[in-house]
Amino acid sequence: MRIRVINPNTTASMTTLIEASARAVAGPGTVVEAVTPAMGPVSIESHYDEALAVPGLLAEVIAGERDGVDGYVIACFGDPGLDAAREVAAGPVVGIAEAAMHAAMLAGRGFSVVTTLGRTAGRAHDLAQRYVAAGGCRGVHACEIPVLELESDPTVLPRVVDLARAALESDGSDVIVLGCAGMAALCADVSKQVGVPVIDGVTAATLLVQSLVTLGVHTSKRDEYARPEPKRYTGTLAAFGTT
Amino acid sequence: MRIRVINPNTTASMTTLIEASARAVAGPGTVVEAVTPAMGPVSIESHYDEALAVPGLLAEVIAGERDGVDGYVIACFGDPGLDAAREVAAGPVVGIAEAAMHAAMLAGRGFSVVTTLGRTAGRAHDLAQRYVAAGGCRGVHACEIPVLELESDPTVLPRVVDLARAALESDGSDVIVLGCAGMAALCADVSKQVGVPVIDGVTAATLLVQSLVTLGVHTSKRDEYARPEPKRYTGTLAAFGTT
Amino acid sequence: MRIRVINPNTTASMTTLIEASARAVAGPGTVVEAVTPAMGPVSIESHYDEALAVPGLLAEVIAGERDGVDGYVIACFGDPGLDAAREVAAGPVVGIAEAAMHAAMLAGRGFSVVTTLGRTAGRAHDLAQRYVAAGGCRGVHACEIPVLELESDPTVLPRVVDLARAALESDGSDVIVLGCAGMAALCADVSKQVGVPVIDGVTAATLLVQSLVTLGVHTSKRDEYARPEPKRYTGTLAAFGTT
Amino acid sequence: MRIRVINPNTTASMTTLIEASARAVAGPGTVVEAVTPAMGPVSIESHYDEALAVPGLLAEVIAGERDGVDGYVIACFGDPGLDAAREVAAGPVVGIAEAAMHAAMLAGRGFSVVTTLGRTAGRAHDLAQRYVAAGGCRGVHACEIPVLELESDPTVLPRVVDLARAALESDGSDVIVLGCAGMAALCADVSKQVGVPVIDGVTAATLLVQSLVTLGVHTSKRDEYARPEPKRYTGTLAAFGTT
Amino acid sequence: MRIRVINPNTTASMTTLIEASARAVAGPGTVVEAVTPAMGPVSIESHYDEALAVPGLLAEVIAGERDGVDGYVIACFGDPGLDAAREVAAGPVVGIAEAAMHAAMLAGRGFSVVTTLGRTAGRAHDLAQRYVAAGGCRGVHACEIPVLELESDPTVLPRVVDLARAALESDGSDVIVLGCAGMAALCADVSKQVGVPVIDGVTAATLLVQSLVTLGVHTSKRDEYARPEPKRYTGTLAAFGTT
Amino acid sequence: MRIRVINPNTTASMTTLIEASARAVAGPGTVVEAVTPAMGPVSIESHYDEALAVPGLLAEVIAGERDGVDGYVIACFGDPGLDAAREVAAGPVVGIAEAAMHAAMLAGRGFSVVTTLGRTAGRAHDLAQRYVAAGGCRGVHACEIPVLELESDPTVLPRVVDLARAALESDGSDVIVLGCAGMAALCADVSKQVGVPVIDGVTAATLLVQSLVTLGVHTSKRDEYARPEPKRYTGTLAAFGTT
Repeated sequence: MRIRVINPNTTASMTTLIEASARAVAGPGTVVEAVTPAMGPVSIESHYDEALAVPGLLAEVIAGERDGVDGYVIACFGDPGLDAAREVAAGPVVGIAEAAMHAAMLAGRGFSVVTTLGRTAGRAHDLAQRYVAAGGCRGVHACEIPVLELESDPTVLPRVVDLARAALESDGSDVIVLGCAGMAALCADVSKQVGVPVIDGVTAATLLVQSLVTLGVHTSKRDEYARPEPKRYTGTLAAFGTT
Repeated sequence: MRIRVINPNTTASMTTLIEASARAVAGPGTVVEAVTPAMGPVSIESHYDEALAVPGLLAEVIAGERDGVDGYVIACFGDPGLDAAREVAAGPVVGIAEAAMHAAMLAGRGFSVVTTLGRTAGRAHDLAQRYVAAGGCRGVHACEIPVLELESDPTVLPRVVDLARAALESDGSDVIVLGCAGMAALCADVSKQVGVPVIDGVTAATLLVQSLVTLGVHTSKRDEYARPEPKRYTGTLAAFGTT
Repeated sequence: MRIRVINPNTTASMTTLIEASARAVAGPGTVVEAVTPAMGPVSIESHYDEALAVPGLLAEVIAGERDGVDGYVIACFGDPGLDAAREVAAGPVVGIAEAAMHAAMLAGRGFSVVTTLGRTAGRAHDLAQRYVAAGGCRGVHACEIPVLELESDPTVLPRVVDLARAALESDGSDVIVLGCAGMAALCADVSKQVGVPVIDGVTAATLLVQSLVTLGVHTSKRDEYARPEPKRYTGTLAAFGTT
Repeated sequence: MRIRVINPNTTASMTTLIEASARAVAGPGTVVEAVTPAMGPVSIESHYDEALAVPGLLAEVIAGERDGVDGYVIACFGDPGLDAAREVAAGPVVGIAEAAMHAAMLAGRGFSVVTTLGRTAGRAHDLAQRYVAAGGCRGVHACEIPVLELESDPTVLPRVVDLARAALESDGSDVIVLGCAGMAALCADVSKQVGVPVIDGVTAATLLVQSLVTLGVHTSKRDEYARPEPKRYTGTLAAFGTT
Repeated sequence: MRIRVINPNTTASMTTLIEASARAVAGPGTVVEAVTPAMGPVSIESHYDEALAVPGLLAEVIAGERDGVDGYVIACFGDPGLDAAREVAAGPVVGIAEAAMHAAMLAGRGFSVVTTLGRTAGRAHDLAQRYVAAGGCRGVHACEIPVLELESDPTVLPRVVDLARAALESDGSDVIVLGCAGMAALCADVSKQVGVPVIDGVTAATLLVQSLVTLGVHTSKRDEYARPEPKRYTGTLAAFGTT
Repeated sequence: MRIRVINPNTTASMTTLIEASARAVAGPGTVVEAVTPAMGPVSIESHYDEALAVPGLLAEVIAGERDGVDGYVIACFGDPGLDAAREVAAGPVVGIAEAAMHAAMLAGRGFSVVTTLGRTAGRAHDLAQRYVAAGGCRGVHACEIPVLELESDPTVLPRVVDLARAALESDGSDVIVLGCAGMAALCADVSKQVGVPVIDGVTAATLLVQSLVTLGVHTSKRDEYARPEPKRYTGTLAAFGTT
């Protein structure tokens, strides 16, 4: 089976990291290919960035459908364009926030999210309200390190560990969810130091997509996620139209 | 004061209708200008259309900020790009679903939405969950008339009236919300025939924005809706970057 | 159009302040008249006071209907008698807690209420549960200054400012709602000092009623808010009966 | 122990019926006294009636405190004045909707309310949201018989039975709650014919108050239900003031 | 009437204490008999203990049905086996967490639970979500004293009092619920020292069962709580089968 | 890796079927072993059956821990003993209702459960409230075929198909969840005939456990799911004690 992991920002080095994480957990029969969109923001740190990451991401899904891709991972913790991608794709599409929150609910009673910038906390809460039962997401905590500095900043690991420990105490949670695809590489170290399950969405989503494809479970095309109506698009985005 | 009403689809005749509705209710000191984006879908009938309407819409907000606009209405019932627009704009931004649902909650105990296509019902429910108290939105009902046929199809009024009457009965609701900017012109007729308040979001949102500007209430710039971080964008959307 | 702003307590000096606030924002064609009930408590600081303010308030609505009033504001943050007033009035009726909470939800993601006495916090939470989506009201904080001392106590402004700042931090909110009609005059100063939108319900409600009248949106008379059945009343309240 | 059952309307024959129901279940050491207020509506069938029933009801609680009453039942299904009465009384105060809904949740998984007029259904839903866990109240159904005709109309029993049966089916409920104090006498007959537990609030509330007094559990006077602040009242209601 | 109070653990001295509490509040016509199961854990401090306490508890209910018992109290704060016992018993069955939480909601606006071990807090929150309206249970606080040391440890009272005081402050609650049957004897002392109502579930449940029996309200046998289907059981538990 | 799938009832032929389903989806490195408990009911169709299935199930988990099992599936749609099993096991434990509901939420916007007996619907709703976001489970529908007749009754498939079609219409759902482990074999046929994703929990849970083990995500041992305290057990269940 072929799973396309889409990094919705346009920073290729981050795509490389994401691909490595996804490949590390995929089963023997699964081909994981990570892609970088041809347009959009170099990192996603606001609703504005997230909205403008979606066209590039959808172009990758449209291309994937032509290429016979079996399922998709959206590898940004805001899960941008998830609903639209589900309309376009024949197979399953899973966001990494969605996957991480699902996994967290199987590992404990309530989780805390440790993320990059505080301004994205509202989005994390919105997603939790959509994905998990009430009371599952018990807090969102930011280390205030910009996404593109996660790789290079040597203080990231200790700061995330400290934040995770404090979150468990203040929130009464028992699982940590990492709130950025760029934190995937930290997962094992944080878990070892903090002593509770720590969930990275990239690996969790890759295995969820692999499982859904194995089960033959695609997105329901009844009503909401039916393929978009054919229609004319204008201007710079004309190529997204179907007539 | 100057209010920009953005029709997020690229059909200019619909912008004209929306402008007429908005102007009909604006106060004497309010200048209403409706605009059509330079790119995007000719109508919005799916998550895909909605996501791809946002770049064109945000371009209009960015332009409006340069032009000294005081507040914005997003005139599509899916309220596309609302969060992103709030980050970009200094003044208030209100979506027509948001405005209509707020007004409906002041006019009765629970409302039914009468909309165009059934596939958009999930989006309406999602917005209701975000905007109003639990139990406020009691049902979403579709007449299955595509957006661009609303103007020309003579059966629209009787079908909307029938649907509204049935919705009040089945949902136990006491107010009707029209679920498409293209239905604005029907509002008074439906209300007269059905005998309950019927809310059109275009007029409701225009007056809400006018009121917020009068009150001096802008979007809070604390955390989530702070202006987006300056950042490079690539490819077709490079112009949305700030460096 | 004619809007009657009812101060549900019997302190005329407070009515004067409320009237000034309301008139300052009303449109050119709107006549605002604030009234003081002929019976009831001099201030409202408990469920007991609130319950006993309602007969005097309803008498003003009944009188307003005879006088051709187009809409009503209930200018006490507990919104006393709102449901009953909606049954009696032909036009819209809006409470100031209702209006302030609606406006707050358009200005940010979550608000904190800063109010007078801690014992009224439960009522504020109850109203928030009815008026806004879950998670909107993130905290209620009391300065413990009695209603009738708000005007004369020079420490009110700094205490409200301090409380507002602390509330934003502890609640993770981004908007402040003033929890008493008697705080209306502080609104601009608190907002300037705290740096986030601060909502006063008197002005917010006046503009909401004005907007609803402009839109032609009255209270739905289907079922719950139909005019009360004619009926005999006895004793001191006999005048409220209709036979 | 002495329990005062207050019929909040001013129809003495209904007070007599209520007293009989309450006395039939009270323990040997319990004195039940039902009272009729000196002012207010002859029946309660709207928010207006309910609001104007409260002064007369509170006068009975104030008198009860002077008389050494140990606890109170508010015998109207809208539970008018419950919060205010809890501030005034030293001992427990229980409303009949509250008691009936609590009992129903101990007898099954979800209940349907069978009540008099459809216009009161919204109030029943509001009370259920306050009193019981989500999903407990599964429907409210009205026989459209005015309160004062319950006693004389011979079709009441069969209509209530039919409505109860239909409600169990349509709502998927397993318990019936009678939605009016005037239906207390029907309770055993409806239960026998319908075959599920049927709850009358008058008897349920009487035993709850008796139990709370036995347990020594009074209303908490911390914050919200503390005794009202002493204060001047004006006009017709001046007697309710304390200075 | 005959009420069987089942202590689901197998420590007879605790049964004796529970029986004394229950008898102290029961009415003159009520016979209270407390029983200890013949199998199971000596105390219940985990989901594992709770699950394995249920067979012994159900055996006592089955025996009670043969003995003509009118109603049952399950005297462990986790309310183990409540649903199963309701299927087996003809009369009412009430858990002590259920009873305590119901009573607390009649005594104030929100309660805090003070319990033994922190690991049981999740269970208390789950029960609160099932039994009471949202917002009723405002916190669960553990003194970390094992159940079987409650009787002998002289520091229990002061620690519970301190914890209760802190909980009222931090949770903004106004009632305390004791989270273990073994704390029943502390109830009056804690209430006196803390100054708010303190609820013990053993006494509360005994009076609720007594009231339900007096009202003639049994568990609804429609659907979910119908008697279990006759069926073969195997192995050590074969005696629980009916064929 | 080694996954133990526990059929909580004692019917070995059902265990065989479950094992086949689980093995069909497991990855190449995964050993699936299905087990039948040594004690308990031959089928689970009530709370009573479910409660009494737990000791036998826990014995299998305890044995599995000795045997080096990596993770467990609880293969009954009521997910009996899930919390207790999580305390006992070092690795992940997933129930089939839990897994099916998680998968359904990734495949559409809302699901309907098609199950065996109507009396179990309440349990399904309770589990949905715990596992998925509000609004996810839109209905539970029973074909009223006892669990042990699923295998032999030739009308099962057409009845389940009809029920599924009706459920999608009446509930407005877009995914079907099969509500019994005994329906696993029907999954592909129902999906083909109904045209939407149909989820069987046995396969879904097997892949979830496999994924969690691959991710290194075990149950958090912080607080609630810590290993049970060592303790004496008495009577027939003495073997479950640890001293």
